[in-house]
Amino acid sequence: MKLSFRWYGLDDPVTLEKIRQIPGMKGIITAIYDVPIGEIWPMDKIIALKKEVEKHNLELIAIESVPVHEDIKLGLSTRDKYIKNYKETIKNLGKAGIGIVTYNFMPVFDWTRSSIDNKMEDGSINLIYEHKKVLEMDPVKGELDLPGWATNYEQKQLKELLQKYEDLSEEGLWRNLEYFLKSVVPVAEKSDVKLAIHPDDPPWSIFGLPRIVTNKQNLKRLVNIIDSPSNGLAICTGSLGSDPNNNMSEIIEYFSKKDRLNFLHFRNVKHDKNKNFYEVAHLSSEGSLDMYSILKSAVDGGFDGPIRPDHGRMIWGEEGRAGYGLFDRALGATYINGLLEAIFKN
Amino acid sequence: MKLSFRWYGLDDPVTLEKIRQIPGMKGIITAIYDVPIGEIWPMDKIIALKKEVEKHNLELIAIESVPVHEDIKLGLSTRDKYIKNYKETIKNLGKAGIGIVTYNFMPVFDWTRSSIDNKMEDGSINLIYEHKKVLEMDPVKGELDLPGWATNYEQKQLKELLQKYEDLSEEGLWRNLEYFLKSVVPVAEKSDVKLAIHPDDPPWSIFGLPRIVTNKQNLKRLVNIIDSPSNGLAICTGSLGSDPNNNMSEIIEYFSKKDRLNFLHFRNVKHDKNKNFYEVAHLSSEGSLDMYSILKSAVDGGFDGPIRPDHGRMIWGEEGRAGYGLFDRALGATYINGLLEAIFKN
Repeated sequence: MKLSFRWYGLDDPVTLEKIRQIPGMKGIITAIYDVPIGEIWPMDKIIALKKEVEKHNLELIAIESVPVHEDIKLGLSTRDKYIKNYKETIKNLGKAGIGIVTYNFMPVFDWTRSSIDNKMEDGSINLIYEHKKVLEMDPVKGELDLPGWATNYEQKQLKELLQKYEDLSEEGLWRNLEYFLKSVVPVAEKSDVKLAIHPDDPPWSIFGLPRIVTNKQNLKRLVNIIDSPSNGLAICTGSLGSDPNNNMSEIIEYFSKKDRLNFLHFRNVKHDKNKNFYEVAHLSSEGSLDMYSILKSAVDGGFDGPIRPDHGRMIWGEEGRAGYGLFDRALGATYINGLLEAIFKN
Repeated sequence: MKLSFRWYGLDDPVTLEKIRQIPGMKGIITAIYDVPIGEIWPMDKIIALKKEVEKHNLELIAIESVPVHEDIKLGLSTRDKYIKNYKETIKNLGKAGIGIVTYNFMPVFDWTRSSIDNKMEDGSINLIYEHKKVLEMDPVKGELDLPGWATNYEQKQLKELLQKYEDLSEEGLWRNLEYFLKSVVPVAEKSDVKLAIHPDDPPWSIFGLPRIVTNKQNLKRLVNIIDSPSNGLAICTGSLGSDPNNNMSEIIEYFSKKDRLNFLHFRNVKHDKNKNFYEVAHLSSEGSLDMYSILKSAVDGGFDGPIRPDHGRMIWGEEGRAGYGLFDRALGATYINGLLEAIFKN
């Protein structure tokens, strides 16, 4: 397993110099952020990004993410243009020797929380999702704490978009995902690139939007669309794991053995039965997930890809991108190191 | 095992608020720093210290250290007064419910390095010991990097002191340690306090000074002076482990099984056969010690006392007390958590 860390590029206050000083750190997960969604990532930008990472003795191990244009998810007639561009981007990444590309298929919103600055008893700041609060929010009025999503839409636009997805329904979204994969996966295969879909977060419908990457059954349906290691998963323990019905160890062992786990996001949550969850430090003792069992399952299943500590709390007065500070994620990284070392040596 | 962290009191930039935010952190290791060496630690100061720690939902789990007056180590006629005071301090600590007291028996100098601000390839700062450089230094001229030791002596005084110890020799120092223990251990027993001697660092003679807490054979000799759990050890993996002849896993398992390991300091070093060593991050992969094997040996031996991450590098631009910054030690703490969780669940 290759320990890696998400980096948001040259503007990220969590610099490569700092990431490099985390013991055992090998890889960087990043993206190109200044190419508009749907356009081709040019070769020169990819090479420059790779060189920047390698200058710090780190490896650019995966892209997170090449975003999927909304028209593809909606299945609009314009999608073929964007899919063509997506394939060109994959070819370019493959040429640059980058073997893993993450994406998600969540309509409109990326990950969603009811608060991104909840203060815990020990003074640390965390992200929380309280289902009732989210139900009461009106996304059209901009009442959401959505760190993963910039308000790109006018109210009227957003309202129309939400209506379109409601009409589409889950089966419609599945059809559009299938269309996308059948076009893109063969190119990924030829380019030596493994796609890795990120689960929906939270893994249930919000604001009437269909969400389909939510549980084991749906993940099985997804990998069966095209049976290829290039059609794989980026399993995020904190995303799927916020639903207590998802047995994370079992899911991870299953897809590791099937060689469809391409990337592992390591995060813990404290959840309840009422669709509430709180992001906590990575340790098993802090949340609802057994992080040892999850990692053991990945090892037993033969997973040998990248793993990264996902969202951390904000501690020690750090300020920055919600979930993506340096300190708590680095603590997660050495915790992973400890678990892995003991699992392999035991 | 109880995960704990050393704290240098209210002046420490690494505050209890910050320590509390390290996941899984339970205990604090500290001392009273404003009572002159040799005097009794008054009850009110002990209680105030304990309350301060408990205010932050942490437990004051051990004292590091109650320093042993030089006259005791030298065996001067004045020692009885200081030993009497030492016993009173132990009684007071016992009354306050503090069950572990660390001390060392190193003449004149505490831990010694040739540099406390060596810059590593990745920009982090570490402590190193290069034997040749130390041999060339003249402590009387104040040419040492000695973070653990303030220059308390005039040149002439120090010269005389060094001469006294040279005359004393190792056997003389053993006699003085024996005298001290035979007086103090029975009081510790009655007070429910376990003494824990810290090994010499480095574990060999420097500047002609005798050093006796250096290897398994000597540790055995020490615990055999009085056969009691109150006459135990604070094994520091980085101190003893800087001598490649010390098999740390074997030593720790031996004294755990004997119930004489009272406290474990968890630190990694990169050493060579020529008495040089470099302090590194805690991970096994970074240094010469197998940290998994060390921890597994402690667990197998039944050790259930406090463990703390010892010296870290200075990373991410942190400045502060050499070896005792927040960041790298906290990374060590979660690494310990990972190792321990996997060892217990395996």
